[in-house]
Amino acid sequence: MIFAKIDTPAVLVDLDIAEANIDRFQAHCDAHGLKLRPHIKTHKLPRMAQRQIRAGAIGITCQKISEAEAMISEGGIDDVLITYNILGGDKLSRLRALAAQVRLSVVADNTATIDGLAEAFADAETPLSVLVECDTGGARCGVMTPKAAVALAKYIASQAGLTFGGLMTYPPAGQEAAVQNWLVKAKTLIEAEGLKVPVISNGGSPGMWHAQDVPIATEYRIGTYVYNDRSLQDRGVCTWDDCALSVLVTVISVPSFGRAVVDAGTKVLTSDLLGLDGHGHVLGRPDIKVAGLSEEHGMLTADAIDLKVGDRLRIIPNHVCVVSNMLDEVQLIRGEATLGPCPVVARGKVW
Amino acid sequence: MIFAKIDTPAVLVDLDIAEANIDRFQAHCDAHGLKLRPHIKTHKLPRMAQRQIRAGAIGITCQKISEAEAMISEGGIDDVLITYNILGGDKLSRLRALAAQVRLSVVADNTATIDGLAEAFADAETPLSVLVECDTGGARCGVMTPKAAVALAKYIASQAGLTFGGLMTYPPAGQEAAVQNWLVKAKTLIEAEGLKVPVISNGGSPGMWHAQDVPIATEYRIGTYVYNDRSLQDRGVCTWDDCALSVLVTVISVPSFGRAVVDAGTKVLTSDLLGLDGHGHVLGRPDIKVAGLSEEHGMLTADAIDLKVGDRLRIIPNHVCVVSNMLDEVQLIRGEATLGPCPVVARGKVW
Repeated sequence: MIFAKIDTPAVLVDLDIAEANIDRFQAHCDAHGLKLRPHIKTHKLPRMAQRQIRAGAIGITCQKISEAEAMISEGGIDDVLITYNILGGDKLSRLRALAAQVRLSVVADNTATIDGLAEAFADAETPLSVLVECDTGGARCGVMTPKAAVALAKYIASQAGLTFGGLMTYPPAGQEAAVQNWLVKAKTLIEAEGLKVPVISNGGSPGMWHAQDVPIATEYRIGTYVYNDRSLQDRGVCTWDDCALSVLVTVISVPSFGRAVVDAGTKVLTSDLLGLDGHGHVLGRPDIKVAGLSEEHGMLTADAIDLKVGDRLRIIPNHVCVVSNMLDEVQLIRGEATLGPCPVVARGKVW
Repeated sequence: MIFAKIDTPAVLVDLDIAEANIDRFQAHCDAHGLKLRPHIKTHKLPRMAQRQIRAGAIGITCQKISEAEAMISEGGIDDVLITYNILGGDKLSRLRALAAQVRLSVVADNTATIDGLAEAFADAETPLSVLVECDTGGARCGVMTPKAAVALAKYIASQAGLTFGGLMTYPPAGQEAAVQNWLVKAKTLIEAEGLKVPVISNGGSPGMWHAQDVPIATEYRIGTYVYNDRSLQDRGVCTWDDCALSVLVTVISVPSFGRAVVDAGTKVLTSDLLGLDGHGHVLGRPDIKVAGLSEEHGMLTADAIDLKVGDRLRIIPNHVCVVSNMLDEVQLIRGEATLGPCPVVARGKVW
């Protein structure tokens, strides 16, 4: 039985593979003169963030203040970019406290957010660096035109407790030329107003091997690359051998010749499809489809399922970041060696 | 600002609505002579399980041992059915420990599971009650024919540490006549073998108002009814006013006239669609579509979004059980009154 010491379902993280992933993309960024600022949302583990820093990363990216708090208190990280519009008195107080501990920057795409930040940092010793979030085609957050980016840059620069830190975008994958063009325009217009643009932060795992195709960017943010997953394998960004996270499951029922049920459903694998058919890839059994999930059941189908109750399998999930968020601990392994559990310190941090 | 004391995103549970839901369905079961055994997977809160018992439930249903452990240690629950094939030495030891504390029963749909249970309970003072899980059309776990149910019932009854407890099914919704027919056949065949069928356990929220249409069932298991959700509203099982759980969010960005972004994504609402279009229902704004989610962003669209940064909204999720599993605590409310946070004791219990 594989990984006999580990009860199922379990999230396995192979450190050998994760470390190779970290080192490979760090080398890629180094070769292209890009600073790397990994997003901790994928692993949520202080030890992994430390490993990324040791490999050469300049700091980390967090989406939420509570993630940053977890990484700073347990990981000793000292440079954090929070890529989120932060609003509300409680969050702003916590942000102020964080700014006293580490080199901190945040983003904003609207004046209401900037007003809140300015009020919270009005009497700060060191002004807070605020980047303008730009929608270069991703259609999530961000100002929608370079002109709007200029207006917001000037608005940030006019606040006593803030400094304009530059531009940040979560770009559409595969549209590097358009992203470059957008950012060049914005930078040129902002500089024409007499402002410096110290940082241009681009990112995203789908486009990772084309990071250098947006040469105006000074840094790259990336999360999924540390573990990889079925969605990135499907896009040709990685191979199955580069997938560091897998879900260890046990077959609990074999109702018919072509069907089996395993002990992991959406409470481990989640319902994220990311455009894919099925809910994961069964290692060593490409003929099996993870055809359906309920909360605690995973339904496998195949022409001949050829499994018996008690068999163990490993499933590469569609989307690894959300799987990291489901359980309180992951099981660290190296190849077939079991190293033990590791708490997912930044799990469930949505504030 | 609504619920000003609560930071967002937050999962709100309205106790007035939940209690009314509990009492209404208990009355329905009482009127039809059906015992009610609520599934705690929806709320994962010992206090809610206690409330269900006080209303008249005969015990609770859990999917996993770890859920049962949480409910027993913190909720003082004394009658538990675990509707899962339990396998493996560690789980079986824990099951044995639970059996010493409460009235416990489990299910099985295969001989390997029964062999494990029999070995673990071989020298138990009280034999473990094992129900045969039946696939009456749901196509998840369960023996696929009444004949197979008989074979397994006899196999259970032949084990020293086990007793045959009856039949259990998670039925396909809306096919009550077929389910009744299946279970009648199985019961008749089993009784012809000289075995009693003490319990026939049916369940599921989609078919809850037709629970009585499978009259052979002695008890009904049901989870979602305590909170209700968009999927049940869509099926006509409840109204929006019966939805006890909502996600409180803040608008963090309004990029364009028809689009806004809120601070809850899949890490709160999850990707569960349950066949629906969009990711939730915005209370009071049926014109808004929750068009997309990423981990920390919810994308709202409308012809005219008419929202500003900082506005708060409440979203009824598609599937409430999975939302209960995302955060370490929910915020209890009654109407507009904030009662305080409550830990989700059985969150993340997948073992």
